[in-house]
Amino acid sequence: MRATLKDIAEATGLSVSSVSLVLNDRPNRISAKNRQLILEKARELHYHPNQTAVSLITRRSTTIGLVLPDITNTFFAQIAKGAETRSRELGYSLMLCNTNDSPEKDDDYINVLLSRGVDGILLVSSYQPGGDTLCSARWEPSSLEKPVVLVDRGLDQFAHKQRISGVFADNELGGYLATQHLISLGHRKIGCITGPMGAASSKNRLFGHIRALQLAGLTFDSSLVREGDFHTESGFLLGGQLLDLGVTGIFACNDMMAYGVYRAAAQRGVQIPTELSVVGFDDLPFSEITEPPLTTVRQSAYAMGVSAVDKVVRMIRDEHVTEPIETMSPRLILRKSTGVCQK
Amino acid sequence: MRATLKDIAEATGLSVSSVSLVLNDRPNRISAKNRQLILEKARELHYHPNQTAVSLITRRSTTIGLVLPDITNTFFAQIAKGAETRSRELGYSLMLCNTNDSPEKDDDYINVLLSRGVDGILLVSSYQPGGDTLCSARWEPSSLEKPVVLVDRGLDQFAHKQRISGVFADNELGGYLATQHLISLGHRKIGCITGPMGAASSKNRLFGHIRALQLAGLTFDSSLVREGDFHTESGFLLGGQLLDLGVTGIFACNDMMAYGVYRAAAQRGVQIPTELSVVGFDDLPFSEITEPPLTTVRQSAYAMGVSAVDKVVRMIRDEHVTEPIETMSPRLILRKSTGVCQK
Repeated sequence: MRATLKDIAEATGLSVSSVSLVLNDRPNRISAKNRQLILEKARELHYHPNQTAVSLITRRSTTIGLVLPDITNTFFAQIAKGAETRSRELGYSLMLCNTNDSPEKDDDYINVLLSRGVDGILLVSSYQPGGDTLCSARWEPSSLEKPVVLVDRGLDQFAHKQRISGVFADNELGGYLATQHLISLGHRKIGCITGPMGAASSKNRLFGHIRALQLAGLTFDSSLVREGDFHTESGFLLGGQLLDLGVTGIFACNDMMAYGVYRAAAQRGVQIPTELSVVGFDDLPFSEITEPPLTTVRQSAYAMGVSAVDKVVRMIRDEHVTEPIETMSPRLILRKSTGVCQK
Repeated sequence: MRATLKDIAEATGLSVSSVSLVLNDRPNRISAKNRQLILEKARELHYHPNQTAVSLITRRSTTIGLVLPDITNTFFAQIAKGAETRSRELGYSLMLCNTNDSPEKDDDYINVLLSRGVDGILLVSSYQPGGDTLCSARWEPSSLEKPVVLVDRGLDQFAHKQRISGVFADNELGGYLATQHLISLGHRKIGCITGPMGAASSKNRLFGHIRALQLAGLTFDSSLVREGDFHTESGFLLGGQLLDLGVTGIFACNDMMAYGVYRAAAQRGVQIPTELSVVGFDDLPFSEITEPPLTTVRQSAYAMGVSAVDKVVRMIRDEHVTEPIETMSPRLILRKSTGVCQK
């Protein structure tokens, strides 16, 4: 049985209104001793307010929905962790929705979340293979009755349409930093293994790579660009092809593919970093312990989750959001997989 | 503005009761054409029922809380993914709570979830360093007004106290399988790097290791057991110590520590598997792509999440739970890090 204010009043011998004032943290003149007594008894009786009734009156559920593609992907898990921690700090609970990268499920989950009365939604939209992110969405963020903050994906699709809020990684800058680092070590023949080009993040990393080449006065050679799928096996196959073309540096657009490049190099007896320099993207936990540890671009996934919650809560409270679209700069993490070009 | 049944009735020219019957999926005699019209208009107007009002009436929120230590740990993320997928299938939403392995937060979150009116709770309890799991809990699962299913942890603490439900990995069997495999390859001097011994899972993996030794008639030598902390660095340090003692096989009680053993072996010029066989535990995604790929024990984390939801939903519906305490058998995944003992 749920304990009521009356139960606590009876157990303490104090009035229901005293109990109510203390447990709702309202201004009161109740003595410290009685206050303590009420709090202890409330804990003992497992008292907790009926939040459902509160929600119906306040029209606030103090719940935020988080829709993401795959919670077992470390990058999204870090976003979730940041979002969950910050939600809790601000008094919100987080509802988790895992779409398995299916755009139809984005829609379904958004409807579920709205019907559950969440106050706001954080959306890491699904990637549609061969097409644009969010292409199937039958709605636009601003058309929904509740605030939506896009996280990591969807900027391209919505930016030109209307006012949106979002937290994005600066993938272009990340790609630039990776390739610029290889150039600074003297590499001239640099391969790039991209992610699926339908995803904006893949495209922007490649654009950053090209910008770095141009700024260094190097000619862009499209035969040195191979489209992978963010999985290790594609890094292995495409990394092997690039090695056969004589590259001395490879920028793999995520760490998983960089691990595949390691395997392709090992298979050919190519030493990293003396004969081949490799830069990844993501900074997965494993990249610290590869042999050699992987130089990579670190995205601030946790910080993105925190910031997305800050934004959505400001929107829920009708407060001004100073930076509706926030772009987080990634950092190059220098480890042992890159070295001075020996050729 | 939230669309109401009345809005849809007006837009379609049909009665409110017809709209209500269709959208609530009640038996009705409405024509297929009108049914279609209502569904299309409901979608167009972004209709969704006010779940908060429904909850207050039915006293069901069709929400399940999931409390876990760290969503960025792949094992827990897989539990969450299984739980989320199954919840959705059964019409429930999942509220995510990340405790950062703090037992105080277990308590806090359980109170938050209860105050939010969740119908049931899945608890992967926090590990208290140097102490028992759940030692700080001021409650017992059966004392709460809502069903609780323990996942992965907490069996030891509660089993003797009262009726509980839970889904656990058979860690003892996992430890047995790992060491038995090494013995079957001819290894006799086998080291074991445990997790923190305060955690039941660590203890049980060690017990399985010891059982395998005994069954093979090998004497247990405590100097070959080293207590790690589940992190790579401890695997590196303790793996080095075991190598210096001349072991030919090492059972590392999780994959992260096994990666540390790889590094210790590389540092000493010891070849895996010809000079050293290594078995891990967890089967993290990286274990497929290590050089050599890691032989390890796979837990069915996803299946544990699915089963935990099945149990809690049966409890919510007052249905009989056939197997209140379910133990899931792990499997040995054979890869390239183990080979016939050469000494």
